[in-house]
Amino acid sequence: MSKEKPALPKGMRDFGPKVLQKRNYIFSVIKNTFERFGFQPLETPTMENLSVLTGKYGDEGDQLIFKVLNSGDFLNKVTLNDLEDGYKKTTRKISEKALRYDLTVPFARYVVMNRNEITFPFKRYQIQPVWRADRPQKGRYREFYQCDADVVGTNSLLCEAEIVLMIDEVLTTLGLTDFTIKINHRGILTGIAEAIGEKGREGEICVAIDKLDKIGQEGVEKELIERGIAEKSIERLRPLLSLSGENDSILEQLDPVLVDSAEGLRGLTELREVFSYLQHFNIQTAKVELDTTLARGLSYYTGCIFEVKVNKVQMGSISGGGRYDNLTGMFGLPGVSGVGFSFGVDRIYDVMEELQLFDKTVASGTKVLISNFDKAAEIYSLPILQKLREAGIAAELYPEAAKLKKQMTYADNNNIPFVLLIGSQEMETGLLNLKNMQTGEQESLKLEEILVKLK
Amino acid sequence: MSKEKPALPKGMRDFGPKVLQKRNYIFSVIKNTFERFGFQPLETPTMENLSVLTGKYGDEGDQLIFKVLNSGDFLNKVTLNDLEDGYKKTTRKISEKALRYDLTVPFARYVVMNRNEITFPFKRYQIQPVWRADRPQKGRYREFYQCDADVVGTNSLLCEAEIVLMIDEVLTTLGLTDFTIKINHRGILTGIAEAIGEKGREGEICVAIDKLDKIGQEGVEKELIERGIAEKSIERLRPLLSLSGENDSILEQLDPVLVDSAEGLRGLTELREVFSYLQHFNIQTAKVELDTTLARGLSYYTGCIFEVKVNKVQMGSISGGGRYDNLTGMFGLPGVSGVGFSFGVDRIYDVMEELQLFDKTVASGTKVLISNFDKAAEIYSLPILQKLREAGIAAELYPEAAKLKKQMTYADNNNIPFVLLIGSQEMETGLLNLKNMQTGEQESLKLEEILVKLK
Repeated sequence: MSKEKPALPKGMRDFGPKVLQKRNYIFSVIKNTFERFGFQPLETPTMENLSVLTGKYGDEGDQLIFKVLNSGDFLNKVTLNDLEDGYKKTTRKISEKALRYDLTVPFARYVVMNRNEITFPFKRYQIQPVWRADRPQKGRYREFYQCDADVVGTNSLLCEAEIVLMIDEVLTTLGLTDFTIKINHRGILTGIAEAIGEKGREGEICVAIDKLDKIGQEGVEKELIERGIAEKSIERLRPLLSLSGENDSILEQLDPVLVDSAEGLRGLTELREVFSYLQHFNIQTAKVELDTTLARGLSYYTGCIFEVKVNKVQMGSISGGGRYDNLTGMFGLPGVSGVGFSFGVDRIYDVMEELQLFDKTVASGTKVLISNFDKAAEIYSLPILQKLREAGIAAELYPEAAKLKKQMTYADNNNIPFVLLIGSQEMETGLLNLKNMQTGEQESLKLEEILVKLK
Repeated sequence: MSKEKPALPKGMRDFGPKVLQKRNYIFSVIKNTFERFGFQPLETPTMENLSVLTGKYGDEGDQLIFKVLNSGDFLNKVTLNDLEDGYKKTTRKISEKALRYDLTVPFARYVVMNRNEITFPFKRYQIQPVWRADRPQKGRYREFYQCDADVVGTNSLLCEAEIVLMIDEVLTTLGLTDFTIKINHRGILTGIAEAIGEKGREGEICVAIDKLDKIGQEGVEKELIERGIAEKSIERLRPLLSLSGENDSILEQLDPVLVDSAEGLRGLTELREVFSYLQHFNIQTAKVELDTTLARGLSYYTGCIFEVKVNKVQMGSISGGGRYDNLTGMFGLPGVSGVGFSFGVDRIYDVMEELQLFDKTVASGTKVLISNFDKAAEIYSLPILQKLREAGIAAELYPEAAKLKKQMTYADNNNIPFVLLIGSQEMETGLLNLKNMQTGEQESLKLEEILVKLK
C-alpha cells in the first residue's frame, strides 16, 4: 500500500457537508420546480460509447472528451503503424467508451433508442455531472453538474413561456431579485442578416455579436470586418443592436426592418406569442427583455433563445437555452422539435454566496445534539433520542462521555443549533435543559415541549 | 455526423422516468434516515488519481478499475520498451486518473486530506455511483450506486447500535417486514479459530464459511480441508457454526468456548453492549440475529460485522458493513477507528418490485393534466395552471390543441391520476370537470375545491 500524500486530480472537487448542504438546497429548488411543471426525471449512464459522442461538439469538443481505456489487454489490437500515426488514431483502438460531455447528446440518444415507448410530447429533466478536459481555472472545473429540462415532440410556444416561468420561479425561490431573462429568436438574427444585405451569414454575425459583453461594440465590429462583413452592412446593423424600450416597442421597431424576411417574420410572430402567454401567466414582464444582441454560440438553436444574467454581480449567464428543430437528427431520427434550458449550479452557488442568500438553517443538518456525560445519562438519553427522531427531528447523542467543552465545540463546528444538556438534576426532575447555541439561552423543558419547539 | 444506430455500452443503464421515480423514492428514504441520525452529506469526484485507488482492492480489484486516458498526446511519454513490457506497464504511462471503485477509499482520502478541518467524530453519508469493469450479468452492472454511512473517530458501540436502527427504519419505511439483520464480530471468529486449534488462521476459515449460503456445510468443510485446516479442527468447528436459540443464549454457549481468547472475549463483551443499547432503544430484537457463520469477505473489518437478508426472497444481502480500525492507515494516518455500512439500492429495488411494495403514487410525477381543446380554452386555463402550481400541485397543460383521446393516452402513459377537462361549458359556468383516471369518475368542481382535493 502506498503511503504517499493523497491528492485530488486537477479540476476535481470534494464537496464537504457545509458546501454540499447548500448545493443540495439549490438542486432541490430546481428539482421541485421542474416536477411541479410536469417534467419527469431521466438519468443516463456516465459512460457512453465514444462513437455516440464524437463529432457532436466540434473538433475542439472532441479533444475535451475524457476517454476511458478499454479493460484488459487494450494493446492487443494496436499495431506499430497505429502508434506511428499518432495518438488520435491510437485512441480509437484502445478506447471505446467516454465520459458524458453534456446532457443533450445522451438525451437525444435516449429519445432515439426509446422512441417507441415514449409518449410525446416528452418532458424530461436531468440533473447529472458532466466532464470536460478543459484547462481548469477560477469557476471552471473538469467535473460539474448540469440541470437540464427539455420538451420534445411539440412546437407549442407554451413551452417557451413555461421556461421563462420556471427560471423566474427558481431564482425567486432562491432569493434572487435583480435578474434579467434575455430572450431573442434565431429568426430575428436571420432576418437582420438579410435586412443588412448579408443574407445567409447570420452564423458569422452571431459568433461576433455573442462576444459583445466581452469585447464591446468596437471589438464586435472589428471582428465582423475580419469575417468579411461589409462596412455598409455593419452601419445598417449598428442601430439594430442597440434598440431600446419596452419589448413591444422593440418588436414594432423591427417590423419594418424584417418585413421582407420570412424567417424574420416568423421570429416576430413567435416572440409576440411567447409574450402573450407570459401576460396571461401574469409574470412581471420587466424581468423579460428582448435583446437582439443575444446570439448564443450553439449552432443547433432554430427558434427562441434565452439567457439569464444576475444584475450588479460579476458573473456570466446562470441559465440559458432555446429551441432546436433537429436534436435527434444526429442519430437518424429527423423532425423531432424541442426546446430546453439549463441552470448553471456552480455559478448560482457563487452568486448566492456573494449576495449572502444562504439562510443559516440551509447548512445545518442535525437540529439537536444530546450531551453525553456518563453511562447513566447516556442510557437515560436513548429513548429521548428515539422520540426526537420519530418526531422527524434530526438528532444525535454524542457517542461517548466527554468534556462539555468538546461536545459544545462539536455542536458549534457542525452548525447544530440546539444542545440538550442532560445531567443528574435533569434525570431526577425530567425537566431537560435545552440550550440555544446562537443566543446562549437555556430553558428547562419537558420532552413534549421540546418536541413542539424543535419541530 | 454519424447516423449509426446508437447503443449503450455493456453493463450501462438508462433510467427512464418510471424506474427513476421509484429509485429516487428509495434514495430519499435512505437519505432522510441518514440525516435524521445526524449524518452529513459528502460527495467526492468521479475521477481519482490512479495512485489513490491502486493497491486498495487486491490484484483482481486493480484489474476492474476503469482507467481514464490522459488528455492530449498521451503517447509522448511511451517508449517502445513500455509497449513490449505489456499493457499493465503502459497503463501507468498513459493513464493517471481512474473512476471511483467504491466510496470507502475516497472517504478515507477525504478524511486524511481534511483531518485538520474535520471535527471528530465525523458522521458522513455518501450516495454516489461507482464503476467496476466486471463481467455484466443479471443484477450486476458496471455502474451502480452505493449508499454509505460511516462514523469515524470514535470507538463507541452506540454507533453499531444506531446502524441497526437505521437499517431497521429504512427497510420498515420502504414496507419490508420480513428481514433479518445478521450480526457477528471479528473477535468471535478469531476466538473460534483459537478455540479449535487453528490460531491465526481465521482469515482462511472466514473465506470458506463466507460461502456457506452458496456451497453448503459440506462444501465449506471441503474447502477448509483444501485450505489445510485439520479434520479435528473442523469437527470442533462444526457445532460452533450451528448454534441456535436467542442471541443471549448463543452468547452464553460461546462463553466457555472463548474463555481463553482475548479477542473472543472482546467480541462477546462488545456484542453484549450492542444488544444492551438495542434493548434501551426498544428495537424488535427478533430481527437482529447473532450468526457465527457471518464472516464477510473484506479483510479490513476488526469489530462488529453486519449483513441484512430479506427472508423468503431469492436475493443476496441488501445491506452490510462493520467496524474497521485502520481505514485511513492506507494514506498514512493511523489510529482512526470507524464503523460504517452500505445499502444496495439495485437489490432493494428488485426486492420491492418482486413484493409489489411500490405504491402507485410513487411513480407518478404530475398530479393533474389540464386538457387543451382550442386557443380559447388554452388561454382560460393558464391562470388555473398557475394556481395549481402555486398550491404545490404538479400540473401540466397539454401544450397544444389535440383530440381528447390523444390527451387521455398521454395522461395514462405518464401515470397522471387526474385530468381537468375544460370546454366551452366549463368556461361559461366556472365549474371545472375533474376526471379521476383510475375510477373514471368525473366531478364538476370550483377551482378552490379542486385545489383542496388535489393537495
